[in-house]
Amino acid sequence: MKGLILKIDCPDQHGIVAKIASYVADYAGNLVEFSQFTDSSDEKFLARVEIDTTKLSVDISEFIAGFSTLGKSLNASWKFREQPYKMRTAILVTKTDHCLNEILWRTKLGEIPIEITSIIGNRDVCQPIAEKAGIPFHHIDMDGDKKAAGFEQIRDLLVEQKVELTVLARFMQILPDWFCKQFSGNIINIHHSFLPAFIGANPYRQAYERGVKFIGATCHYVTADLDAGPIIEQEVKRVQHFHSAADLMRLGRDSERDAIARGIRYHVNDRTIIHGNRAIVFPD
Amino acid sequence: MKGLILKIDCPDQHGIVAKIASYVADYAGNLVEFSQFTDSSDEKFLARVEIDTTKLSVDISEFIAGFSTLGKSLNASWKFREQPYKMRTAILVTKTDHCLNEILWRTKLGEIPIEITSIIGNRDVCQPIAEKAGIPFHHIDMDGDKKAAGFEQIRDLLVEQKVELTVLARFMQILPDWFCKQFSGNIINIHHSFLPAFIGANPYRQAYERGVKFIGATCHYVTADLDAGPIIEQEVKRVQHFHSAADLMRLGRDSERDAIARGIRYHVNDRTIIHGNRAIVFPD
Amino acid sequence: MKGLILKIDCPDQHGIVAKIASYVADYAGNLVEFSQFTDSSDEKFLARVEIDTTKLSVDISEFIAGFSTLGKSLNASWKFREQPYKMRTAILVTKTDHCLNEILWRTKLGEIPIEITSIIGNRDVCQPIAEKAGIPFHHIDMDGDKKAAGFEQIRDLLVEQKVELTVLARFMQILPDWFCKQFSGNIINIHHSFLPAFIGANPYRQAYERGVKFIGATCHYVTADLDAGPIIEQEVKRVQHFHSAADLMRLGRDSERDAIARGIRYHVNDRTIIHGNRAIVFPD
Amino acid sequence: MKGLILKIDCPDQHGIVAKIASYVADYAGNLVEFSQFTDSSDEKFLARVEIDTTKLSVDISEFIAGFSTLGKSLNASWKFREQPYKMRTAILVTKTDHCLNEILWRTKLGEIPIEITSIIGNRDVCQPIAEKAGIPFHHIDMDGDKKAAGFEQIRDLLVEQKVELTVLARFMQILPDWFCKQFSGNIINIHHSFLPAFIGANPYRQAYERGVKFIGATCHYVTADLDAGPIIEQEVKRVQHFHSAADLMRLGRDSERDAIARGIRYHVNDRTIIHGNRAIVFPD
Repeated sequence: MKGLILKIDCPDQHGIVAKIASYVADYAGNLVEFSQFTDSSDEKFLARVEIDTTKLSVDISEFIAGFSTLGKSLNASWKFREQPYKMRTAILVTKTDHCLNEILWRTKLGEIPIEITSIIGNRDVCQPIAEKAGIPFHHIDMDGDKKAAGFEQIRDLLVEQKVELTVLARFMQILPDWFCKQFSGNIINIHHSFLPAFIGANPYRQAYERGVKFIGATCHYVTADLDAGPIIEQEVKRVQHFHSAADLMRLGRDSERDAIARGIRYHVNDRTIIHGNRAIVFPD
Repeated sequence: MKGLILKIDCPDQHGIVAKIASYVADYAGNLVEFSQFTDSSDEKFLARVEIDTTKLSVDISEFIAGFSTLGKSLNASWKFREQPYKMRTAILVTKTDHCLNEILWRTKLGEIPIEITSIIGNRDVCQPIAEKAGIPFHHIDMDGDKKAAGFEQIRDLLVEQKVELTVLARFMQILPDWFCKQFSGNIINIHHSFLPAFIGANPYRQAYERGVKFIGATCHYVTADLDAGPIIEQEVKRVQHFHSAADLMRLGRDSERDAIARGIRYHVNDRTIIHGNRAIVFPD
Repeated sequence: MKGLILKIDCPDQHGIVAKIASYVADYAGNLVEFSQFTDSSDEKFLARVEIDTTKLSVDISEFIAGFSTLGKSLNASWKFREQPYKMRTAILVTKTDHCLNEILWRTKLGEIPIEITSIIGNRDVCQPIAEKAGIPFHHIDMDGDKKAAGFEQIRDLLVEQKVELTVLARFMQILPDWFCKQFSGNIINIHHSFLPAFIGANPYRQAYERGVKFIGATCHYVTADLDAGPIIEQEVKRVQHFHSAADLMRLGRDSERDAIARGIRYHVNDRTIIHGNRAIVFPD
Repeated sequence: MKGLILKIDCPDQHGIVAKIASYVADYAGNLVEFSQFTDSSDEKFLARVEIDTTKLSVDISEFIAGFSTLGKSLNASWKFREQPYKMRTAILVTKTDHCLNEILWRTKLGEIPIEITSIIGNRDVCQPIAEKAGIPFHHIDMDGDKKAAGFEQIRDLLVEQKVELTVLARFMQILPDWFCKQFSGNIINIHHSFLPAFIGANPYRQAYERGVKFIGATCHYVTADLDAGPIIEQEVKRVQHFHSAADLMRLGRDSERDAIARGIRYHVNDRTIIHGNRAIVFPD
């Protein structure tokens, strides 16, 4: 579909929907989907608007530019994205490949509209997978005192390749603050536990010892505060006492694949809006 | 909250959202929730609009009446309901009481905004429950050749008590066609299987023999075509080979309670729109 | 069914199953269900054995007594319970009644084989529910400095009424250590979060602020270490950004009802074995 | 682990567990897992026994051979399988590759202990996947009147390659009766609906039109009666009115991948026993 997605947030006020919808209608756009949420705690209005532009009476660029008068009058932040769109995405890995494989597979199937610019690993274990998929692989040694330089190299790659989204697909390195800040809102991580339970090392071992009856995984935006960024998606699986730590890892992998695939999908389809420490998600 | 809920469906056309939202904004109504769905297969637009009328610039009745100009121009069907609202509801039962208890309990808790006008049973088994809850109970004998007259008695009760919603809470009588038609769209049934699997008698026995790994329940609108009305809600539970038919009944009861409670809730909060043979549901 | 349930745990060793099963067979008992788990981390064997005693060649008491030779030789702890059995159970409440209602309802339906000796409240809010159900209600004032004496009164009631299981059905008082110890393994609590997430006050508020995508409830044995006892059962429900803290409470209630009902059922059917800080559960 | 798995079924009778467990114990085998089910409807005893043979006092072959005296006296059918074991498995495909990819990936990870002898397609679409994975691919044209000969070719391949398990991973050909019979109990299919709902063509379209709230997939043994063989595993996903038939296909793929992966895993780990028209499954 030829179209536009508008994400907007602004202080709640009288007549917002009417104004936005009228702007679209005035230029012969067709509202395909209108998802809105008003957070009563802080009087914020947030919306995602999907517009069919087939019959638009003006150029898309003119339509987008013209919106700024309304946007400013609403005191809003907003962003348009033309459809179809393939978001330039880099995937960071270490050794584990199940999340990487899941993303590659769904991308190939057309479920996740991204263009994978590169796979970057602080180990070279995933290089053969990248090669089979025909995607450039960059091995960046980050061991010991090479870590700081490594992150600069990654930064350079991301900037150079005009990467819009960085996915940490079981990337086992703690990101420096400056990195989180520079790419804020554009880094997605998969955490191998049902956050906020079992923060920290070896969540499966923790889960086993605590005897929980579900384990899970969490896909979240990365912020400087480790494992505490806005949650995009979670998944859980039932477990029982006979599941060993190895079984929990197996079931955990399934949770991770589900959660990261949906999380990325929501992000690249502009179905998420970061709102304070929460992610507003309009799922499909 | 003082407010209005508008349900509307009309042929899809240019600018519908803008027109509806502008009408609301023009009279200082505030859109609290705007849920919309366009069925591309038949070019139909359907929406549920929740309006805060606290600052409405006109009387609510005037606001509602004034909408008809727009509604007609859109060639729409629509309905307004003032909030808060308690829908007058009759519950039909036979012997089984778990759905009845679930409805009573959630109603008391304020989760389901209904006023239960009466409990009607073709057996008197549930009479003590009705009495404890302080709700009139009508025992209507429908055995053998009293069945036809029984449904006329029920009809008279529903009309006389101005009942808006009739819930078949495991009511073990097949409704005559004229009854389904007279109350079309206002009868909700709970079916003790995951429809369309196991239509017909003894679904638990069927499920056991087929060896399925999930059983379920289905809450649906009643139409003349038995068990084939629009589905409002379903629930499933995992089962294993060691679950006897009695275990399946136990787990089935849990599914039924969940499905009927949510189904009624969606209906009385005007979160459902019947659209052909499907129910469009905007869940909360 | 006339029968026996045997729960046993002992150091893992050669031929345990053969020995137990042979003992049963030697006296013409019939193994209906044999559930076993060997914890390889500490070399412990745990089992639940369900025996049909219809054709037993000796008296049940003799059969039970005779087992001690084998039990001792295995260095085991074990317990027999004759079936059918109704466990004497007290329910402790404060104001909230959804867990209480759930337990009463399932007990009446025969899903939970207990005899409710009394309902004990530190508020009298639930007294009418107890009266309708024909169960003695004890109001014990525990406000301010009456708390210590209150727990002694409860203890006296539990002892006097020969209570075997105490269920904290949203009982909003922290139990003193001596109380936990005295009734160790025989107190079940429902915690209104998916432990170990959101330990502490107001878990729904915490869940809302953290933006999790599932909320849950946890049914666990009470130990002196608050909220850290062995988990018997958990339940989770999916939530979204538009669910207010009130919605989370509503969905939380559903989780709590599910989890406590199953948790009690597992306990009274001897389907749980406390093993260190975990509960081994053989679900049905 | 060096070990044996015993699957056994026989008429229910006195002392079975004792006899089996004693046989194992007599030869210094260690019961790691003992899963048993007695079907009271037809008085059948079924069990799966996992034996650690590290300390076995005789050769494994002798142990297995010696069991036949007991097995015959119980009038049982039984089968031993030495562990670790990689079942020789052929995968039949047409065009769709998501089930194939899932199986390849989990096999590589060690989650499914199989040796894939070949991938056989009536289209050559999946050939590149087979090549990348280093697995022989056989393209067998089955169009039009080549169908009968095609199945004979497949049969020859399966026999020649000593295939023990044939997986229909979205293989879009109806199997002839003789083929089903010849490989009875050793063919697993994935059906793209929650059976028995939506048997037949285009289940997603059927599900969409019926407006169900869950869709699913079913992994089952193939029998001559199409889509009616014993169910091994099922999976369901929640859907809503806004999910198009394409969305249902996407969610259906996820269900299929989950169900087929677990179904195969249960089969090759000998966790299934076909019992009449049901599959008894001891899940892990």
